[in-house]
Parts: sequence; structure tokens; C-alpha cells
Amino acid sequence: MSDLSSLGKVKALAFDVFGTVVDWRGSISREAQQIGTALDIQRDWTQFADAWRDGYAPAMDQVRKGELPWMNIDSLHRLILDSIVEPFGLAGLDDAQRDHLNRAWHRLQPWADSLEGLTRLKRRFTLTTLSNGNFSLLTNMAKQAGLPWDCVISAELFGHYKPDPQTYQGTARLLDIAIDELMLVAAHPSDLRAARAQGCRTAYVIRPLEFGEGYPPYRYEADEFDLVAEDFNDLAAQLGL
Amino acid sequence: MSDLSSLGKVKALAFDVFGTVVDWRGSISREAQQIGTALDIQRDWTQFADAWRDGYAPAMDQVRKGELPWMNIDSLHRLILDSIVEPFGLAGLDDAQRDHLNRAWHRLQPWADSLEGLTRLKRRFTLTTLSNGNFSLLTNMAKQAGLPWDCVISAELFGHYKPDPQTYQGTARLLDIAIDELMLVAAHPSDLRAARAQGCRTAYVIRPLEFGEGYPPYRYEADEFDLVAEDFNDLAAQLGL
Repeated sequence: MSDLSSLGKVKALAFDVFGTVVDWRGSISREAQQIGTALDIQRDWTQFADAWRDGYAPAMDQVRKGELPWMNIDSLHRLILDSIVEPFGLAGLDDAQRDHLNRAWHRLQPWADSLEGLTRLKRRFTLTTLSNGNFSLLTNMAKQAGLPWDCVISAELFGHYKPDPQTYQGTARLLDIAIDELMLVAAHPSDLRAARAQGCRTAYVIRPLEFGEGYPPYRYEADEFDLVAEDFNDLAAQLGL
Repeated sequence: MSDLSSLGKVKALAFDVFGTVVDWRGSISREAQQIGTALDIQRDWTQFADAWRDGYAPAMDQVRKGELPWMNIDSLHRLILDSIVEPFGLAGLDDAQRDHLNRAWHRLQPWADSLEGLTRLKRRFTLTTLSNGNFSLLTNMAKQAGLPWDCVISAELFGHYKPDPQTYQGTARLLDIAIDELMLVAAHPSDLRAARAQGCRTAYVIRPLEFGEGYPPYRYEADEFDLVAEDFNDLAAQLGL
């Protein structure tokens, strides 16, 4: 915790989404399980979700390095999906079926505390997404899950993926606030560190089940982030809401 | 009315905001009246609102022609405000006071039917703004007035003002829908015609009081727009909601 007195300046909270607001692993494995059941395919569908997610950071890095042209997350998810259908027995899915499965990322379910915590936080702060997910994905997800954003901001608007500085700076610019009036809320220290380096305030929300039971927790220094919270209700309480 | 049978394809409604969703003239003149009362200045404050709005289209045209660099609406509103304070007796306002007055555009009040109509329309459609107002203006306005957008889209995201084609095409692209799955809802035939030329569906909502009592209505052809509605509740009813 550092310099708590100046947190009163914070006007907007920008939320990482995958893992922080929604449970991608549980949601994706449940949708894949349904397909598996329908097609009588036996696999470990949490492994399928993990394999899909494992391709995510490397694919964004290829975009960042110029090895791939700018592609949004729907397109990157589809590239990865096409590369893992074979070992999971799903190679028989046609284009429309793959597209539907790909859009499971638009239908991710929130963590149990997300809706209540966001509703509390919305009383005082402007709430936005700041996600690498594309604009339509985030908009569709919010509509489906009832996430009460004041606006939707995606890395797609900047043509840069987090943790590129353009994403944090661009969010403050669109909201017309100073960078230290913006707090990033995320379950991933790497994202928070990049935001802090740009001057954002930071709230680390620990999501111990993002990668399943027994996954080792992230390491972080005691004074690295302005706030550390167990969930969104805890974050709201720490911010006096 | 034309080709009503294909309106079933529409997935998202994009709303013009100034005049269509909110009553800028009444809202601005009320805020100016309060300042006038406090400073004991007697003027016709609806004329002040009209003078401010009169500078709007020419200022955007200067940006479009490259006579001004890209500037968002907050900046253009401030340029215009600074040019009209003198005749309205407000030249004594300092920078902070002018900034506060400039942000009256973030605090515009909805027409009486707007909230109920939008809430009905939201049941079936994705609702977004498509306004020349900047992103923070639209976000602040929605939070203040309780406008239930699914997302906020501004011309600022495209670096082009309506009626430039990039705004309508860019909205469909961000929402990842075909251009004919997007319906523009606006109180201004010129905006609707530009959207229609790009392939959007169109709904003309008549706002006879936008410019005050007795202002001559816009002319339009009987089959120019897909729908013509008296207000948002009428629009919802015509769309079966």
C-alpha cells in the first residue's frame, strides 16, 4: 500500500476482464463439455480451456512484434482454436460450429461477487473495461452477463494490446482524466505493473481460482499496489462504498 | 417506409444524442439562466443556447476541411463559448468558470420519453451512442442522466465527424455486425441520409421542440427512412417492444 491519501483523486476504475471480472476457465470448459457430451467425445475440457488460453499471450506477442497484422481477439481466438481442435477430437466441427464455439468468449460468466461489487463501485466511480478483448466481445459479454459498465474500452480502440503504454494512456485520454485519476483493477500483477509505470493507481484483486485449484499464487511486493483486495466487494469496502 | 420485412435483421441501434436523446436547448439555457441570475445579468438565455449551437456545425466543418486540427467537441464548444461570452455579458467568467459552463454539455437532460423508450429497446437490441460528442462527454452524460447504453461510441474514436462515412462504417465494424444490421436513430434527416447512403437502416424520431416552439419541421420524402416515430416509446412499439 502506498500513498493512500491521494486515492481520493481517483475518478475512474478500469477493469481487466478475463480472469478479473469473469471466469474464463469455468465458462469455456462448460461450453466445451456440452459439445463433448453432444458429440460423445471424452476429454478433460478444463485442459481444453487451458490450451486455448495458453495460445493467447503468444498470439498477442506476434501482433506486437509485427509477425501478424493487427488482429482482434476474436480472430486470434479462432486461429488458436483451429490449432487445437485435432487433439481434442473437435476437428469435425464446421466453420459455423467453430464460430459459435469461438464466441463462447462473448458469453463468459462473472465471478460470484462481480455484479454486486461493480454495482457498489459504480455509485462513486466511472467504471470501464480495459481489456484486450475486442469491443464487440466486451459489449456482448456485458449485455449477456449484466455487467454495469459506464462505457466499454478495448485495446482494439488503440491498435495496441496491454501491457503496451498506449492502452493505459489512451484510456485516461478518452475519459479526459489525468493518468493518476485512473485506477486499474486487475488480477494480474504484470498488467498492474505496466499501468503503474504509466502513472495509474492500481488495485490487485486476487482470483485464486482463475487457473484452477492449487495453482501457485502470483508473487508481489507488499507496497507494489495501492490496494490489494480479495474480491470486488472487498475492494468496494476498502474504497468506502 | 421501405423494405420493412428485412428490419428483423437489425441487431444494434445507434443513437444520435444532441437533440435526439437529450434536450440541449432547454438544458443549456437553464444552466446559463442560473449563472445570469447569480451575476444579475439579464439576457435571453435560449438565444445564448442557440448562439452556442450555431457555432457547432461550422466548427466541425473547419475540422473536416483541415482548417482546424482534430479537436474534440469539448474543445470546439469552448472555442465557440469564448467567442460569444462578450455579447451575453459573460466576459468576466474566468477559465474555471468557463470550463464548468462548457461542461454543461455533459449534463444535458433527456427528453421525457428517452429513459423509458431506451429501456424497452434495450431488451432486444444492442444500444450505442453514435454522436459527434466526445467519448468522455457521452460517458459522463449517460452516468448523470441514467441513459442505459450497452456501450458508448463517439466520432472521436474514428477521428471523423458525422456525416463522414467512417463514423457509420466504424460503428458497424466495432460492433462486428453488417452495415444493414445497424439502424441509426436520429432527429435529423441529414444524419439519416448519410447513414442510409452507407447501407444503414434508419429511424427518424421527430423532435419538434429541439429548436423551440414554431421552428419549421424538416422536410423528408415518405419512403426515405425505414421508420418514422414520434418518440422512443413509439419507436419501441413499432419495433414490437
